[in-house]
Amino acid sequence: MTYTSKKERFQHPLNITKPTFLVDKQICLNNIEKMARKAEAHQMRFRPHFKTHQSADVGEWFRGAGVTAITVSSVSMASYFAGHGWDDITIAFPVNLLEMEGINRLAASIQLNLLVENEFSLDFLCEKLTSPAGIFIEIDTGYHRTGIDAIKTARIDLLLKRFRGNKMLRFKGFLSHTGQTYSAVSREMIVSRHTDALMKMRSLKEYYRPLWPELEISLGDTPACSVCDNWTDADEIRPGNFIFYDLMQWQSGSCSMEDIAATVVCPVVSKFIGRNEVAIYGGAVHLSKEFLIGQNGKKSYGAVISPVTEKGEKVISSTLWVAGLSQEHGIIRGEFEEIRRMQPGDLLEIVPVHSCLAADLAGYFLTTTGETIHKIVK
Amino acid sequence: MTYTSKKERFQHPLNITKPTFLVDKQICLNNIEKMARKAEAHQMRFRPHFKTHQSADVGEWFRGAGVTAITVSSVSMASYFAGHGWDDITIAFPVNLLEMEGINRLAASIQLNLLVENEFSLDFLCEKLTSPAGIFIEIDTGYHRTGIDAIKTARIDLLLKRFRGNKMLRFKGFLSHTGQTYSAVSREMIVSRHTDALMKMRSLKEYYRPLWPELEISLGDTPACSVCDNWTDADEIRPGNFIFYDLMQWQSGSCSMEDIAATVVCPVVSKFIGRNEVAIYGGAVHLSKEFLIGQNGKKSYGAVISPVTEKGEKVISSTLWVAGLSQEHGIIRGEFEEIRRMQPGDLLEIVPVHSCLAADLAGYFLTTTGETIHKIVK
Repeated sequence: MTYTSKKERFQHPLNITKPTFLVDKQICLNNIEKMARKAEAHQMRFRPHFKTHQSADVGEWFRGAGVTAITVSSVSMASYFAGHGWDDITIAFPVNLLEMEGINRLAASIQLNLLVENEFSLDFLCEKLTSPAGIFIEIDTGYHRTGIDAIKTARIDLLLKRFRGNKMLRFKGFLSHTGQTYSAVSREMIVSRHTDALMKMRSLKEYYRPLWPELEISLGDTPACSVCDNWTDADEIRPGNFIFYDLMQWQSGSCSMEDIAATVVCPVVSKFIGRNEVAIYGGAVHLSKEFLIGQNGKKSYGAVISPVTEKGEKVISSTLWVAGLSQEHGIIRGEFEEIRRMQPGDLLEIVPVHSCLAADLAGYFLTTTGETIHKIVK
Repeated sequence: MTYTSKKERFQHPLNITKPTFLVDKQICLNNIEKMARKAEAHQMRFRPHFKTHQSADVGEWFRGAGVTAITVSSVSMASYFAGHGWDDITIAFPVNLLEMEGINRLAASIQLNLLVENEFSLDFLCEKLTSPAGIFIEIDTGYHRTGIDAIKTARIDLLLKRFRGNKMLRFKGFLSHTGQTYSAVSREMIVSRHTDALMKMRSLKEYYRPLWPELEISLGDTPACSVCDNWTDADEIRPGNFIFYDLMQWQSGSCSMEDIAATVVCPVVSKFIGRNEVAIYGGAVHLSKEFLIGQNGKKSYGAVISPVTEKGEKVISSTLWVAGLSQEHGIIRGEFEEIRRMQPGDLLEIVPVHSCLAADLAGYFLTTTGETIHKIVK
């Protein structure tokens, strides 16, 4: 928000004075509720990914929607959330063999699920795991980051052989992260990529069900969970980003502006009329260096919310964008008229390109009602 | 480092098990000493920028080299370091008018210097500052981020007029950040850009000295401080990055490989022989999304140190690079032979593209001798 009257300037209603990760709790609750209902409608377990917020306080908002099982991406996060009462956790990251101590501690006390996608790591687990843990085999459905290609059943067979006769490893099923939906540029492309991934996972389920009747398939990135309606045979979804959404999700059509629950509020510190820019206190250490190409064809590190309208609507300014970032500085570029109205001491609300990274950079969150939200300590 | 013998695998001498910002203290001390000697040789004050490490522990290493004055980029950092005994601090960032309370608290207790580059902020300071503070006027010597263009003496005059008769504001001189040296691609280009900036600052000093005989000029980004020998009339340098250096500095010739004091150590979690890749636990939340274009013409988020040679030399692998990053995953790409030798559980030392951002992302540093280094809490 910008304050244009002299009287209001320099006093934010929440006393924000420096870059602050601002969360609209009501929008978060709506996003959670909507996703929980969607999972329910398709008879899927809702196992949200907590890497986006990494906050026990935010975790409680999920409990209110009946969530009991969660996803994280590291042993550290699993330990943190286990310490806050979560007892059914999937670490959806290829198992880190160096952290067996932490893994065994967790496996002894909660229902822990691990992810493997190579024989080397599975053999290691066979030998070192001291308490039972569920194991998902990671499938690469087209993102080509990690996982076994969905058609390579011979490699999957090699892994599955190792479960027979091992008391600690419990084969849970196949898990995939359809990360290719994040680079989709339309809802249609999200649907197409998701459908392709779902079909691959369904064939695997069908193929292996005779031998492993209880196997599950776990899917569900934020774009697909937000946009797609075909979830046949999927047992579980694991979206994370949807709690906040962000500019990337908005650009690909996976959310509307009203669904975006997080912004980074930044003070204006300087104005350059000659080049239509203001400088903000708010840089790569607040927004991250993630960028996208905006509608104007320019690199953008964030969008700027226009001053809230009388109807209370949030509108992304069509003329302002975060054109550059260094460690603590941000450069907002735009049209003369919008720049002219700003002054040092104004606060701008920036929609981050990727809320997971901006949230990770914040030491805490502030809600729009003034509550401080604690998160994991790095 | 990678461990190729079965025996050594899974046990790092420092018990590193997850992404860790590793600092070679001896190299840091050498870098500090070298820079301190350079400042001394040119009779300049050495006022290092502490935004790179943001650590009181590392601050003590500077005290050992006789440093008594420092630079930071926020009121938060100034307060943190003031709390650790630093009493001469310049906040080299256009003053954030929303933090007057913190600024006044600092100005009351230490020698605080602020940066202004517009009348609006200076007028505000004139009215609100309750204890004396030094004021630098920021000059834009070609980076075009913030500051007044060096030739716009009429605008500078407008600012200087405000110092007359004000008891709290003490004009200290002109400060510039020659950030354009960071994008230089050779030592010659660094020298040329620095020389241009220095000439602009010298003209200002000469022009204003009759009226302000004690004015100083403050310069000194890491590339220029590392490479350049002409510092005529400069009173102070403020390099920050040089304590660690990084891939960007190495690529532009401002340091050698032996000067790089920080890496991020990351576990290998998966291997993809078919596409010559390994996946590491180490992503955008450890390295940042800063990238450069490597010698192979590809986008690189970091370089990989080849296994340490028998002579103990660190060598950047010419065939491996960090080709992609998501939140917690990194993808290392390279030649078949190097990839083939790696296994899950190996540790790779990654040289970050921009150590300031990677250091900011770390909750703490570990030294190569096993010491834990504490830093500011966000």
